[in-house]
Amino acid sequence: MEPVINNDYLELIEKLKEISHLNGVMSTIGWDQEVMMPTGAAEARAKQISALAGVIHERTTDPRLGDCLATLKEADSDSFDLLQACNIREAQRNFDLDTKVPKRLVMELAELGSRGHLIWVTARKENKFANFAPVLKQFLALKKEWAQCVFPDKNPYDANIDIFERGTSMAEITPIFEQLKAELIPLIQTIQDRQYQPDTSFLQGTFPVEKQEALARQISQDIGFNFDQGRMDVSVHPFCGGSHPTDVRITTRYKESDFIESLYAVIHETGHGLYEQGRMPGYQELPVSESLTMGIHESQSLFWERMIAQSKPFCVHYFESICAAFQGNLQRATVDSFYQAINTCKPDFIRVEADELTYPLHVILRFEIEKGLFDGSMCVDDLPEIWNSMMMKYLGIKPPTDTLGVLQDSHWASGAFGYFPSYTLGAIYACQFHRTLLSEQPDTEKNIAKGHFTPINHWLNEKIHSQGTLYTPQELIQRVTGEPLNPDYFIDYLKTKYKSIYQLDS
Amino acid sequence: MEPVINNDYLELIEKLKEISHLNGVMSTIGWDQEVMMPTGAAEARAKQISALAGVIHERTTDPRLGDCLATLKEADSDSFDLLQACNIREAQRNFDLDTKVPKRLVMELAELGSRGHLIWVTARKENKFANFAPVLKQFLALKKEWAQCVFPDKNPYDANIDIFERGTSMAEITPIFEQLKAELIPLIQTIQDRQYQPDTSFLQGTFPVEKQEALARQISQDIGFNFDQGRMDVSVHPFCGGSHPTDVRITTRYKESDFIESLYAVIHETGHGLYEQGRMPGYQELPVSESLTMGIHESQSLFWERMIAQSKPFCVHYFESICAAFQGNLQRATVDSFYQAINTCKPDFIRVEADELTYPLHVILRFEIEKGLFDGSMCVDDLPEIWNSMMMKYLGIKPPTDTLGVLQDSHWASGAFGYFPSYTLGAIYACQFHRTLLSEQPDTEKNIAKGHFTPINHWLNEKIHSQGTLYTPQELIQRVTGEPLNPDYFIDYLKTKYKSIYQLDS
Repeated sequence: MEPVINNDYLELIEKLKEISHLNGVMSTIGWDQEVMMPTGAAEARAKQISALAGVIHERTTDPRLGDCLATLKEADSDSFDLLQACNIREAQRNFDLDTKVPKRLVMELAELGSRGHLIWVTARKENKFANFAPVLKQFLALKKEWAQCVFPDKNPYDANIDIFERGTSMAEITPIFEQLKAELIPLIQTIQDRQYQPDTSFLQGTFPVEKQEALARQISQDIGFNFDQGRMDVSVHPFCGGSHPTDVRITTRYKESDFIESLYAVIHETGHGLYEQGRMPGYQELPVSESLTMGIHESQSLFWERMIAQSKPFCVHYFESICAAFQGNLQRATVDSFYQAINTCKPDFIRVEADELTYPLHVILRFEIEKGLFDGSMCVDDLPEIWNSMMMKYLGIKPPTDTLGVLQDSHWASGAFGYFPSYTLGAIYACQFHRTLLSEQPDTEKNIAKGHFTPINHWLNEKIHSQGTLYTPQELIQRVTGEPLNPDYFIDYLKTKYKSIYQLDS
Repeated sequence: MEPVINNDYLELIEKLKEISHLNGVMSTIGWDQEVMMPTGAAEARAKQISALAGVIHERTTDPRLGDCLATLKEADSDSFDLLQACNIREAQRNFDLDTKVPKRLVMELAELGSRGHLIWVTARKENKFANFAPVLKQFLALKKEWAQCVFPDKNPYDANIDIFERGTSMAEITPIFEQLKAELIPLIQTIQDRQYQPDTSFLQGTFPVEKQEALARQISQDIGFNFDQGRMDVSVHPFCGGSHPTDVRITTRYKESDFIESLYAVIHETGHGLYEQGRMPGYQELPVSESLTMGIHESQSLFWERMIAQSKPFCVHYFESICAAFQGNLQRATVDSFYQAINTCKPDFIRVEADELTYPLHVILRFEIEKGLFDGSMCVDDLPEIWNSMMMKYLGIKPPTDTLGVLQDSHWASGAFGYFPSYTLGAIYACQFHRTLLSEQPDTEKNIAKGHFTPINHWLNEKIHSQGTLYTPQELIQRVTGEPLNPDYFIDYLKTKYKSIYQLDS
């Protein structure tokens, strides 16, 4: 069927492209702020960002955009092909999200977000949860009100989850997380009791930053990052940003004493970057090509970081280059001991530093707290105690301070409730995608061992990156793997891998 | 007198600040494009810049801005203090410039600017002036029409000059340039006939880029550049950009075979940067603090590059550090031979590479051609011949190709007629400012020899940087030096300096 040229559709597209261009500008100055901006420019930059945000808000809430959408809603749905229909659907969703919230609430959220972040930074530094508690209470109230505006039919916490993982709700997440708890807590406990720890001493030493940078850049490029349409730089926290699929910017940070952290951060961000660089050609400025959800994005970074780069064949391929890059202790290692050393499991306090086995429990703890805060079964003032007792229950350790406990993450300081589950959903997606890849491309492990990453990249691009927002995450996983999200594969993968590394009876 | 709070004035200020913030954003992505952007992002970036330019144009031509200005025009002029009156005056000038041109003409100019640049790049590469000639003709016609819109009472070329050097006209520039020709052409001829050339052989060698960069950064900081509110990076052409006086970004480029070019580019851009960093505190987002004209801006870069950094005391101070930074040939030099080597005079084809003695003749040639094109006494098709015969007459050399002649500059490819005179006006301003500084601070040369640049910086800041747009260039030079622009000082300076270097009888 030949799509009809519809003037409202064309006007919508023009408006969406302008918004995309302006968002690209915003993204560049956000990147600049983290990577390039001189410290003294912070105040001026905040005003510039605020002015541009005002312009973008004006555009995204333009009543004329609403008129176009209303007319298109009346039009015969057969008038549009799949991609056009998707652009209209996504534009409607974004327009609703941007216009259903009264301006007063938008401003209160923005004000609290900027004030709350500063209060959180200080509270964390001074280990004073009580100073942060009022911010958290106010955010909860505002985010409940916000949920009522945008998704009046949803449970308020589900509404918050929907922003990051659309179509997903507590009802879906809770049983998955219960299953993870039932399987992972005893496994971690067994590993702890096992006493045995792989030798990691050869990962200590001095690793010159320029060597780390060269190695990371090489590996990022090997696995497919296009440096003609991207950059790699240094920032305080690693991230993937950039203004457009042809301008994708990943960052990392370097410690002379540890090259693994930086290298795997680069691989993680490369995974995000490949998703962005791989967006649907010809539609890169339209919603249909955008990344689907936080969880799917995270599935791509974790796919490369965990499923590929922490695998034995990857170690086989890169072990020699890594040893050649760095003198010293590494000469004592073997491929096997290196593989084990980068896959140790050790419960610790900080989520972002956690290994893949303990990581889900950090996420589940936060999910359960958010649920409790939204349904009223927990109250903010009790959080430090709740946090610490859950840490004991799930990981067998108790944070000595709230700085290392309930105050560690920035998410709640910006009101980002419902974000955490995406991290672990991403890990589960990644594992399920990986299993399908192995069955469709049985040579994958051999290819990795030879450094042939192109077939993997093509597969991910065809199945996921280029699919944009055409399907819901639920539809996507069904289409790619032939079944719904299934945490069994993730659990099997973790059990098999860690029982082998820790030499446990199966 | 206590200024009255005027609501229209307050609204004007809010609107001007928003425009300033958005211009800061534009400036950052412009900088990013030159310094950071991956090559593959060019097309997306062009669209982003165009979208943001559209927004800024919407703001600068906002009818409500015009209403505020119209009301303020009616108000009692005693209601406003000097700074407020200046903001209103500047806002009115900018509003007129932005609104008096019909949209059709704005778009034609933009379209020709972008198309013309590409045609010029190719024509220059292929040495085919005939391919560029149609662009130049069209720009001339459009710029005459533009002049009629914005300054109907001015001669069209004067209108174009006014954009870069307001209040200055052919009537003022022509006699000054005639005087320069009368004095400099024979002087350069004498130097050419003299055969003697200072020894520059010790400036040849290999100068590691990281050493060049460290030295340039040190000197830039020594003379006052604040790296907490600025950066220094690499780009194809050196420039000074950045988003705000607290975010000033200079660039240079490095050649391993030549450290002088890069170092003096850094000093030049530092001069521009100090002007921007030194803008009136508390008013940095308002027109009153903006730099005055291109000529005054250039006076600040040339002040540091030529009047300070090419002087003997500066060589005295830095000679040892320079020798220490670079091994090899430099060890044969002395302070005196180094000073002479960086002040050689040699007629050549390219303006941007010219020394301070031949530079004005490159500018005068272009000024005379622009005058001729606007008054109809020259026609575009004859330019290569006109150019070459003027080069013979003024500098005694004839470009072997148009690439090295009439096609060398990008200015005309973007329709920037009237810009060139500012370069030489800047040199004359710089010299006159320098003379006043020496008389007000007689220890200046001693201070330079000791590396004490702060008194110079304070003087420039108080007299020029912090004065923003309060005065016209004509008023400013009168206030700072006690007399109008006087090219005698520039001529005296050049004659004295070069007669001494070339050991000519005076």
